Amino acid sequence: MIIIVDAFGGDNAPLEVIKGCAQAVEKLGVNIILTGSSSKIEKCAADNGISLRGIEIAHTDDVFDIHEKPNEIVKSGKNSSMGLGLSLLADGKGDAFVSAGSTGALVMGATFIVKRIKGIKRVAPSPILPGDKGSFILLDAGANTECRPEMLAQFAVMGSAYMEKVMGIKSPKVALLNIGAEETKGRELEIESYKLLSESGLNFVGNIEPRDLPKGEVSVVVTDGFTGNVVLKLYEGMGSFFAKKIKWIFSGAGVLGALFSIGKIKAFKEQMDYRKVGGSALLGVRKPVIKAHGSSDAKAFFNAVRQAKKCVDGSVTKVIEDYAARLAGSDKNGEN
Amino acid sequence: MIIIVDAFGGDNAPLEVIKGCAQAVEKLGVNIILTGSSSKIEKCAADNGISLRGIEIAHTDDVFDIHEKPNEIVKSGKNSSMGLGLSLLADGKGDAFVSAGSTGALVMGATFIVKRIKGIKRVAPSPILPGDKGSFILLDAGANTECRPEMLAQFAVMGSAYMEKVMGIKSPKVALLNIGAEETKGRELEIESYKLLSESGLNFVGNIEPRDLPKGEVSVVVTDGFTGNVVLKLYEGMGSFFAKKIKWIFSGAGVLGALFSIGKIKAFKEQMDYRKVGGSALLGVRKPVIKAHGSSDAKAFFNAVRQAKKCVDGSVTKVIEDYAARLAGSDKNGEN
Repeated sequence: MIIIVDAFGGDNAPLEVIKGCAQAVEKLGVNIILTGSSSKIEKCAADNGISLRGIEIAHTDDVFDIHEKPNEIVKSGKNSSMGLGLSLLADGKGDAFVSAGSTGALVMGATFIVKRIKGIKRVAPSPILPGDKGSFILLDAGANTECRPEMLAQFAVMGSAYMEKVMGIKSPKVALLNIGAEETKGRELEIESYKLLSESGLNFVGNIEPRDLPKGEVSVVVTDGFTGNVVLKLYEGMGSFFAKKIKWIFSGAGVLGALFSIGKIKAFKEQMDYRKVGGSALLGVRKPVIKAHGSSDAKAFFNAVRQAKKCVDGSVTKVIEDYAARLAGSDKNGEN
Repeated sequence: MIIIVDAFGGDNAPLEVIKGCAQAVEKLGVNIILTGSSSKIEKCAADNGISLRGIEIAHTDDVFDIHEKPNEIVKSGKNSSMGLGLSLLADGKGDAFVSAGSTGALVMGATFIVKRIKGIKRVAPSPILPGDKGSFILLDAGANTECRPEMLAQFAVMGSAYMEKVMGIKSPKVALLNIGAEETKGRELEIESYKLLSESGLNFVGNIEPRDLPKGEVSVVVTDGFTGNVVLKLYEGMGSFFAKKIKWIFSGAGVLGALFSIGKIKAFKEQMDYRKVGGSALLGVRKPVIKAHGSSDAKAFFNAVRQAKKCVDGSVTKVIEDYAARLAGSDKNGEN
């Protein structure tokens, strides 16, 4: 299996990318194509004593600037490390693509270079968020600020396929994010989506109110991209805020107190650690594309590659494709 | 000053309501009209040794059922303790009204019994949320799931008036909740609202991303009622989740560790305590209406009465009214 990785995406590129990829070659048995400046990659690897065994370099000098408009990724083609990676994926030179670059550009590039699965209306960034009883996938987490009910129904299918095939959750519980438990709550979008989800054949458990998200009692949460992005960013923001507060409270606990609690603090940090997941899958694309967090370190890149591998192993895109084909059979308006 | 209080709203009625009101009479020098069953109120006060000095009872046997449709409050009129309180306020028998009953019914009743300020398009529940550097008011927190830009501009005016007159913040910083910092981010609602807010003459500081809300660096946050309700409920949910986690972590810290940290834990709990605020003002109504939290205890009811008193003292409704009148002068479409 070949995983293509953007060597120049994220705050810690290229060193942490190369480190994570070298570990992935060693521990996961995958081959890697790194996109970006070959001289810089080779120098960085040599300077840090990292072996490039199992890693091929696809050279390009440019890097997609995070301040550029997302659609520039389509126009500029293979010039940037991200654009080249997407093109290689589209051309069948690898099985999946990982990048920690601009989310907007990656969504645009995945949509127009790798292309959507036939019948799927929108590509959705789909992060995994930690909860008390288990993690859940949230989609759309930011790409499509205005959505129609049939898009939310498709998000539910894509999220279910992912949680089942990649995370190993049998018949994952799907919930619609809403401001009340009753099916009459919310905007027209929620009321109509509720009906579609009820008839979807998925394990739809109804509405979930935002206060219940941290409990982690469902596996798939669907909403429009504006609300999803608000939830994602507030979730992160509250997480950082409380982590800071816990540290502050504990700075007074003394050595003895810290000794008694250190195991629990570690367990809690582990539970909340975004790095263990890897990144957000961009679901709805013909081949797996993983958006790694901008601040990813080697561990996070390693896990993003592992996540990409699991998507390939679990044939997530095939499962979504089959669903979309069935849908197209029963509904001639299936494609947009 | 007379504050009307619904004696039968919330989970802890009537005992905690009566306790809180008795304290308010004693410490704030206000008079209270309690609405609800006079025999039940008198028995509860007698059984618990609470003085009813300064408290008058406006009798009605019924209580508005939280499961009824909100608009029933308008049809059923003065029959329920909430409906009677709203009618007394509308008739000038008191200066403000406090209830811990159904938010939906209170918004409907405030809008159609007490009525909106002329020129104000929507009544908005406006809770105060705790942040690291300071608290902020969030509106609309749930009443109007679909909003137009001019509504968000009015929310900003109402929130500013409240933070200045009740919370004593000079020239409060106003921000638009959005999924990016740039003014081109978000849906049409955010893009158009940004323009209106820029020209509003308020201290508008631009967009705020949800991850920055817990920092508490702005005083007024405006958004539509769907997004606002999601933010409010996720804020509460994350708060409970982390409070539980902090407790769990600390259960291992031992007596010595706890001793060292107990002051900090108390300070943090105090910072996050919703009871110190009282409740959510329903801004846009002709007279102050305060929605107390459903789980309010005596302290929370006391603070809700204090909050109502501050609204009267600061002439919050007058400030909003003056603004709306100026707006109507410059814009003939001012009223909806």
